[in-house]
Amino acid sequence: MRAFAPRCASLAARSTHISRPLLQRPWHTARRCYSIKPEAASTSIPQDVDASKLVVETTKAPSQRRPNEELIFGQTFTDHMLTIEWNKNTGWTDPKITPYQNLSLDPATSVFHYAFCAFEGMKAYKDSKGQIRLFRPDKNMERFNQSSARIALPTFSSTAMIELISKFAKLEERFIPTEHGYSLYLRPTIIGTQKTLGVGPPGSALLYVIASPVGPYYPTGFKAISLEATDYAVRAWPGGVGDKKLGANYAPCIVPQRDAASRGFQQNLWLFGEEEYVTEVGTMNMFVALKDKTTGQKELVTAPLDGTILTGVTRDSILSLAREKLAPEGWKISERKYTMTELAEASAEGRLLEAFGSGTAAIVAPVRSISWKGKLVDCGLTEHEESGEIALKMKGWIEARQYGEEEHEWSHVCE
Amino acid sequence: MRAFAPRCASLAARSTHISRPLLQRPWHTARRCYSIKPEAASTSIPQDVDASKLVVETTKAPSQRRPNEELIFGQTFTDHMLTIEWNKNTGWTDPKITPYQNLSLDPATSVFHYAFCAFEGMKAYKDSKGQIRLFRPDKNMERFNQSSARIALPTFSSTAMIELISKFAKLEERFIPTEHGYSLYLRPTIIGTQKTLGVGPPGSALLYVIASPVGPYYPTGFKAISLEATDYAVRAWPGGVGDKKLGANYAPCIVPQRDAASRGFQQNLWLFGEEEYVTEVGTMNMFVALKDKTTGQKELVTAPLDGTILTGVTRDSILSLAREKLAPEGWKISERKYTMTELAEASAEGRLLEAFGSGTAAIVAPVRSISWKGKLVDCGLTEHEESGEIALKMKGWIEARQYGEEEHEWSHVCE
Repeated sequence: MRAFAPRCASLAARSTHISRPLLQRPWHTARRCYSIKPEAASTSIPQDVDASKLVVETTKAPSQRRPNEELIFGQTFTDHMLTIEWNKNTGWTDPKITPYQNLSLDPATSVFHYAFCAFEGMKAYKDSKGQIRLFRPDKNMERFNQSSARIALPTFSSTAMIELISKFAKLEERFIPTEHGYSLYLRPTIIGTQKTLGVGPPGSALLYVIASPVGPYYPTGFKAISLEATDYAVRAWPGGVGDKKLGANYAPCIVPQRDAASRGFQQNLWLFGEEEYVTEVGTMNMFVALKDKTTGQKELVTAPLDGTILTGVTRDSILSLAREKLAPEGWKISERKYTMTELAEASAEGRLLEAFGSGTAAIVAPVRSISWKGKLVDCGLTEHEESGEIALKMKGWIEARQYGEEEHEWSHVCE
Repeated sequence: MRAFAPRCASLAARSTHISRPLLQRPWHTARRCYSIKPEAASTSIPQDVDASKLVVETTKAPSQRRPNEELIFGQTFTDHMLTIEWNKNTGWTDPKITPYQNLSLDPATSVFHYAFCAFEGMKAYKDSKGQIRLFRPDKNMERFNQSSARIALPTFSSTAMIELISKFAKLEERFIPTEHGYSLYLRPTIIGTQKTLGVGPPGSALLYVIASPVGPYYPTGFKAISLEATDYAVRAWPGGVGDKKLGANYAPCIVPQRDAASRGFQQNLWLFGEEEYVTEVGTMNMFVALKDKTTGQKELVTAPLDGTILTGVTRDSILSLAREKLAPEGWKISERKYTMTELAEASAEGRLLEAFGSGTAAIVAPVRSISWKGKLVDCGLTEHEESGEIALKMKGWIEARQYGEEEHEWSHVCE
């Protein structure tokens, strides 16, 4: 086997270096082994995350909060972080909020070698009464668990994790600007921390949450982007992990993104297969609004969750809102496969009404045009328009629920 | 965009925390940006790796070397590590050998979120004269550069890196057992160290090499493995990164590996497509020896380097040796696509002579059987055989060159 295959994969749990290692009895076997033993691959969780055991150590040196206009996505962080360690024998340790600090990890730690990393992106908002709110955190935690399990990392109670993230967001309240459009971006992350090079399920992991205050994605109003339809590089594949929020889905997309940028396009439009199915745009889900050739019926379309499409929370919110508010107006709401050829034809016939990406950071990102086979496919905006009608409406509807202007079950008030 | 897309991706280089951060002028732009700017994505390297500038700081507390029989792959490491930092403005810093130590990294570091990690696996051997030898290090460094570039991490001079790794291996000489079959496994690794959450090319990176003394893969002789043909999960695909040694190729394969193990199979045999092409086995390349149905000619077959197959150094060595030593005996040596159906048919007709995986750790791993569609495809070994003839010969031929018993250009003596 290649050298990283375990000669005899000891899966003894290892603790990270941010706390005192626990003494573990190494997993031994008298028999020669060439791979992972089933009994070592157990995913049982002796101790689930227990939010009631949270220990909080606040910083002695609070930082100065940056002025709103200096906030840049993911560049500055709050004073604290939430951490919970896991190992396969004892399960999750007591959660801790500590001052924001470096992670000290052995250079053999599995996240550095085999990409044992998954994450989430979510935001905390301050409403007009000063309450802190999360937006559909249950959806994020559901996906976080799915992502973690897909790479043999542990799962946890969503309810406990939402409680902990709520407490963390409240502790960092002073970093959340009161101005509309501002929020606290939260980045739950899980990494494999086993410090051996054998390729197998990590015996230990670290889950942590850091937070970055962010401003509105479009401070001066929408700015439509142009895309390059990308077929030479493929983001995801059936039987792969494109529907999970794994680190492994990101690094391989950077060079195609850089190449598209060098040709003047802000993002890749990821195509799939000979049929050139439209899948995602950059790191967003993709929506198009079409008018039917025969009936003239309007249709809002996004790719179906076939295993190659990230299960976006904003995607799901847009579909729900469309079914609630657009369907009664006669719109057809479709999760179906669609191709570049279909888009180009609709565009040429004036039936491509608009196109936009969707994701947590921007909510919606309107698309002006798509470069495909040497031509520009126009996505329905006039020269002076920076957004279509549906993208604009969606942003408004979603923000109303995020900021608690419309009371809705999607908004979770942090206690 | 989803929350991790840069609101305005500042690609200001960040240094890691293992040395004092350099002051950088952040990259600013007045224009709104939604993605990576071409000028920020430059891969120019102001300063290449300079082996002559190596600084060595040896440990004050040398560890006790473990007895040979206690050596387990990738579990214990030598006293030192080799590190070189990079940032996009100044290039590579002076290389350092320091005591083996933890990496201290900001929790926002890009390797934890987006899998900016690539690695190599290679070994240092001690020959009968006590000289330290590397095996085809030029091939490893060529692939390491390709892997690194594929995820927008920096490249470097292969020659300089081989010189540095040679010095490192010589410094750790006491950890390399003199007994045949033992060696020092070397793990060159590169990680993206930019400590911001914007998705883009990391502005800084850390390359490091750690070393683990290892024993023979088969201390008591070969032990053939059984495989589960896997079609529900897909390791690699056209337009993906399966031919590069990226962390991203490993974590997603662990759950299928665990599942195969739970059914009693040591490794996955990764199939691709409706045709069920045979691609790789676990983390190894795959070889089969077949007898032609009509002519009876013997053929050694492995999958071609079509972008989904790792460019294994052992794979390349086996092909070279086969062309050198087997072709004159009438063998046909083929890099071509082959399917599970073809293997099953050959097996049923007694024409599947043997099958084996190939990689740095084991050199060859003979295969007894493959579970496929509810039946076991026999791979040509009799009940008491643990290896076929070709696998055995290959191991001998390669080891002769690794340990310098046969002087050959593949063996690099460390100066």
